[in-house]
Amino acid sequence: MIRRKDPYSNCKKISHKTQVRVRFNETDPLGIVWHGNYIKYFEDGREGFGLEYGISYLDIQAQGLVTPIVKSSCEHKLTVKYGEILTVEATYVDTPAAKLIYLFRIFNEKNELVCLGETVQVFLNREGELLLNVPPFIEEWKQKMNLTEC
Amino acid sequence: MIRRKDPYSNCKKISHKTQVRVRFNETDPLGIVWHGNYIKYFEDGREGFGLEYGISYLDIQAQGLVTPIVKSSCEHKLTVKYGEILTVEATYVDTPAAKLIYLFRIFNEKNELVCLGETVQVFLNREGELLLNVPPFIEEWKQKMNLTEC
Amino acid sequence: MIRRKDPYSNCKKISHKTQVRVRFNETDPLGIVWHGNYIKYFEDGREGFGLEYGISYLDIQAQGLVTPIVKSSCEHKLTVKYGEILTVEATYVDTPAAKLIYLFRIFNEKNELVCLGETVQVFLNREGELLLNVPPFIEEWKQKMNLTEC
Amino acid sequence: MIRRKDPYSNCKKISHKTQVRVRFNETDPLGIVWHGNYIKYFEDGREGFGLEYGISYLDIQAQGLVTPIVKSSCEHKLTVKYGEILTVEATYVDTPAAKLIYLFRIFNEKNELVCLGETVQVFLNREGELLLNVPPFIEEWKQKMNLTEC
Repeated sequence: MIRRKDPYSNCKKISHKTQVRVRFNETDPLGIVWHGNYIKYFEDGREGFGLEYGISYLDIQAQGLVTPIVKSSCEHKLTVKYGEILTVEATYVDTPAAKLIYLFRIFNEKNELVCLGETVQVFLNREGELLLNVPPFIEEWKQKMNLTEC
Repeated sequence: MIRRKDPYSNCKKISHKTQVRVRFNETDPLGIVWHGNYIKYFEDGREGFGLEYGISYLDIQAQGLVTPIVKSSCEHKLTVKYGEILTVEATYVDTPAAKLIYLFRIFNEKNELVCLGETVQVFLNREGELLLNVPPFIEEWKQKMNLTEC
Repeated sequence: MIRRKDPYSNCKKISHKTQVRVRFNETDPLGIVWHGNYIKYFEDGREGFGLEYGISYLDIQAQGLVTPIVKSSCEHKLTVKYGEILTVEATYVDTPAAKLIYLFRIFNEKNELVCLGETVQVFLNREGELLLNVPPFIEEWKQKMNLTEC
Repeated sequence: MIRRKDPYSNCKKISHKTQVRVRFNETDPLGIVWHGNYIKYFEDGREGFGLEYGISYLDIQAQGLVTPIVKSSCEHKLTVKYGEILTVEATYVDTPAAKLIYLFRIFNEKNELVCLGETVQVFLNREGELLLNVPPFIEEWKQKMNLTEC
């Protein structure tokens, strides 16, 4: 990424680590994970985070909301082969905006950083309308998590 | 497949041909199309058939029905590499049952058969209930297509 | 499947169970797992089997061989939603032919059968030539596993 | 994206447009294209560009090089449904660095912008070593294309 420093460095963050085993069908003729599949690993990471902290996709859906991705990025540092076991670290970055921002770092078994990434989600209601304010159940969740906005 | 002869040999059939270019991300470390991706090519074939003959997924959905796959099979004859252009031939096989049956043959640019397959779909209504009889709009479509049941 | 009885009923079989959590990106607009993704779950099952019993893809590759899929089939019994945890049972079926045959049964959390399937693989050497006889290391593995051919 | 202005605004650019029809299996339970699939559309765009201008993946491979993606990003503006036909515009951005940079814009049938993105690739030789200088055949290609570095 172009940015020189972490723009979220002053924010309180909470993280979750999920393990994924690289599937044969996720690798390409170069014998390495096809780059688009890291987006799936990010989803595994968000999912693991949501299950641990109580804001999974299904928790959010139960509130009548969906949270489509509006931005994603991925920066690759090392290649990964079939059969490797990766650790996906998903970090929630608090923000006053009506968004869910996650940063991802993926490590191999030697604990080397293989990939960095970020996803940004917005909230839509049942009518498909964009929420301009953070929904109340997310505000409550932030307080419960003791997050201070950055 | 185990069957010795084509069980649908007496049925009237209609076909459609769709072309697909093999994507880099559809090939595996052996440099060939990963076998599970042929199921996507079959879907491209059904889709092309439906668009030509007026029974696409969206046409069926407009009747308040969905048609999930209940069976699929695939037999591989030749490997296929990235960049090859394949012709997917989808053949509708008429049946008195409340099902949609398609046979698939995929050919490479030398017109060699690379793959054979079959999919079977059933009809569900909005309540998710299985239809035991062929829905009227499909019966009408069969008559329009001049299909004789086998 | 068309067959009335299990053609492998007299064969000794060994099995492995693998768990998979259904990913959001594996489900379709009907809210259920897209049928082609079961082929990935079968691969997860074969992989788990191979890791437990010492004939993983990488073990076979270390012998200078690859084992492409030449046939696969899948029969769907129940739909599966995002977030469900599935158990993939992969059963190795012994055969005197130079093939690897696996049967699959996938169960949901209520232990209901959601899907049945089969894959057949052949052996190719480094030159891409089809092996007509079972390779020696597979014969040794069968003896070690105490498999009696059916 | 965070950047306020196009950092490539002074560069000469060449573009290619590719059409893709959204597949059923590319859409999610929200009925829209799952965000990770746009990375596939970007690949379709790069591929179309390479075929038109003579620097396809296979052209590069014929020079003994591969060009893995080291960075990708995607910004979503509008949702896209199954069956829509998208136009993927891939624009090559010239750079003095030993990289291939493409910008992508995806439009729907109403010519509305649905998605913006970027990919960056590097050159590796047969030994997997990173090339620090632009390979000669790419320099020749740039001259032939009459590109002026930005």
